[in-house]
Amino acid sequence: MKIVIERDALVQSVQDVMKAVSSRTTIPILTGIKIVATQQGVTLTGSDSDISIESFIPAEEEEKIIVDVVQPGSVVLQARFFSEIVKKLPQPTVEIEVQSQFLTFIRSGKAEFSLNGLDPEEYPRLPQIEEENVFKLPTDLLKNMIRQTVFAVSTSETRPILTGVNWRVENGELICTATDSHRLALRKAKIETESEQSYNVVIPGKSLNELSKILDDSNELVDIVITANQVLFKTKHLLFFSRLLDGNYPDTSRLIPTDSKTDVVVNTKEFLQVIDRASLLAREGRNNVVKLTTLQDGMIEISSISPEIGKVTEEIQSESIEGEELKISFSAKYMIDALKALDGTEIKISFTGAMRPFLLRPLHDDSMLQLILPVRTY
Amino acid sequence: MKIVIERDALVQSVQDVMKAVSSRTTIPILTGIKIVATQQGVTLTGSDSDISIESFIPAEEEEKIIVDVVQPGSVVLQARFFSEIVKKLPQPTVEIEVQSQFLTFIRSGKAEFSLNGLDPEEYPRLPQIEEENVFKLPTDLLKNMIRQTVFAVSTSETRPILTGVNWRVENGELICTATDSHRLALRKAKIETESEQSYNVVIPGKSLNELSKILDDSNELVDIVITANQVLFKTKHLLFFSRLLDGNYPDTSRLIPTDSKTDVVVNTKEFLQVIDRASLLAREGRNNVVKLTTLQDGMIEISSISPEIGKVTEEIQSESIEGEELKISFSAKYMIDALKALDGTEIKISFTGAMRPFLLRPLHDDSMLQLILPVRTY
Repeated sequence: MKIVIERDALVQSVQDVMKAVSSRTTIPILTGIKIVATQQGVTLTGSDSDISIESFIPAEEEEKIIVDVVQPGSVVLQARFFSEIVKKLPQPTVEIEVQSQFLTFIRSGKAEFSLNGLDPEEYPRLPQIEEENVFKLPTDLLKNMIRQTVFAVSTSETRPILTGVNWRVENGELICTATDSHRLALRKAKIETESEQSYNVVIPGKSLNELSKILDDSNELVDIVITANQVLFKTKHLLFFSRLLDGNYPDTSRLIPTDSKTDVVVNTKEFLQVIDRASLLAREGRNNVVKLTTLQDGMIEISSISPEIGKVTEEIQSESIEGEELKISFSAKYMIDALKALDGTEIKISFTGAMRPFLLRPLHDDSMLQLILPVRTY
Repeated sequence: MKIVIERDALVQSVQDVMKAVSSRTTIPILTGIKIVATQQGVTLTGSDSDISIESFIPAEEEEKIIVDVVQPGSVVLQARFFSEIVKKLPQPTVEIEVQSQFLTFIRSGKAEFSLNGLDPEEYPRLPQIEEENVFKLPTDLLKNMIRQTVFAVSTSETRPILTGVNWRVENGELICTATDSHRLALRKAKIETESEQSYNVVIPGKSLNELSKILDDSNELVDIVITANQVLFKTKHLLFFSRLLDGNYPDTSRLIPTDSKTDVVVNTKEFLQVIDRASLLAREGRNNVVKLTTLQDGMIEISSISPEIGKVTEEIQSESIEGEELKISFSAKYMIDALKALDGTEIKISFTGAMRPFLLRPLHDDSMLQLILPVRTY
């Protein structure tokens, strides 16, 4: 293999596939990046066996030569060294040449590196996915849907299925749900598809976090293909594969209350700041609990006590309070997470008593909701 | 005690004294910040017993009221909570009121915090320093002198005296020296003083690092007072005290070679980048060693081999090479540290053979030098 390639294109591509490479792996070759050069261009692959990322650098783009493939071929190079080297090369073009026994030379300007490469035949094959049933989402919407749900997955392995986000596709709509059994996040959106196929799968939270980092903020469409045990996200030059979690996701629809006894509308940013201040002392305690009390004239009191340190009380003017008076305690962290996830300058919080889960939704927007279980205080 | 104070002035002052507060201390009251309010203003103090910082907020500055002292008094508040609270207060003014048993209320807008305070009488007194023999340095020069030497102190406690920077004052000049016995950094400058007093003390590296963080980048003069076991740095509103290290600093002057056999002049930035690239693979190895070889026509070769990973070679055009041919190996880290510390676009490196320490100096500038011991390679 021998190629001459634009450094910046290579750096970007290496950075993308690095997101899948783990330094802690039981399969030594997965600490490497696979490089395959053909006349069409260069393909880089990184994988930790849960996530695999393939990045393609075309030989030519917009009538500009990006890669000159002098001799096609392939090699696997240690990801950590290779990525550091390409970032620091002195000149805008790089020559990569693989000699016998995969000894690889990387040359740029007057700098020459040689790296001991590995046999690409030993690198695991990526799953082959039939692209029959594809649905599409704009990149920015996909990133938002991930951001608004993935934080609510469980971090505990006691119920592994809850470490993923449930993706259901039905009737031309994608519904993403995540819960750690103390709170729940839900976001739905119309998808573009020509198929009637419905799906119900669970994607590891970690995969979605990595996917989100790798996607840019454009509104170009991402192709999504779901199979029995893999999901593939496809952009112009990237393939992102993730395995799916085994098992059935719990039916969360019955958790979401349909009636309410107290409805409060607040300014999202103001309310977030008040909760944040109230949690300053509570963070020290075991459970970071703050208390909400409805007062007269649309005022709400947020308070928190940490006996050894001190206490904090603050009043905030709501937009409106309807229904019964209420005193309720909840985790400040869950509330802050939920408020940050919701779009909209005003949110409506719907309570059904101090012991029942409550709902947060942007005013006049049914596409997203957050649910939080209260904390019992005695 | 009761005061009404500008939040931003308080935040800045708290941030400054926090640099001296350690969460790991054997003296519980030192996890707090001492606040003393008098008619002149408010003084905050933080200390970890090695370093103490006192910040003064005047009642009035430039005809603007900063603090309204309703009732003078004092209290000690938990530094971590107090600093987080003041940063997040909703309004630009803050009321602080101490009630019985040092229970302290912090109010801003509709937010009210109460913190359990501690008795200020239990807070250790700061050293009393006679300000007889003061010398002065501009803030930016002082920061540079610290930056150019402190990185070279020893991080090992086997010879505690080497964890500090030696400050010698003689003949109207301050000479700062640091060494970890593998490399040495030296920087000198004229000082402003009316006294003939000479000093030879050792200031802990950690103290100088913290001092450097707390000083702004102005060219206002800093007053420096040295006593038998303390040094005091004094700016407009700040007092920074550090204890001195006990013991005699080794005489380093005889380490610095006065003759040379090979003199090389290189562009600092280019040379730094070449060394950085050469060390990419070497970092993995035990000692991060690179090799320098003089070639024909003013060329220098920098190379490094890490048998299991690969090797790197790069040539760089020097400005000049004078004297004997040379092959020498040294720590890439020490070289990078030294190059970053030296000012000047061109530096001169003076070697006295492959086994002897070598010197780096900016071209035409005798106020600073870096010395590095080579590594023997077989």
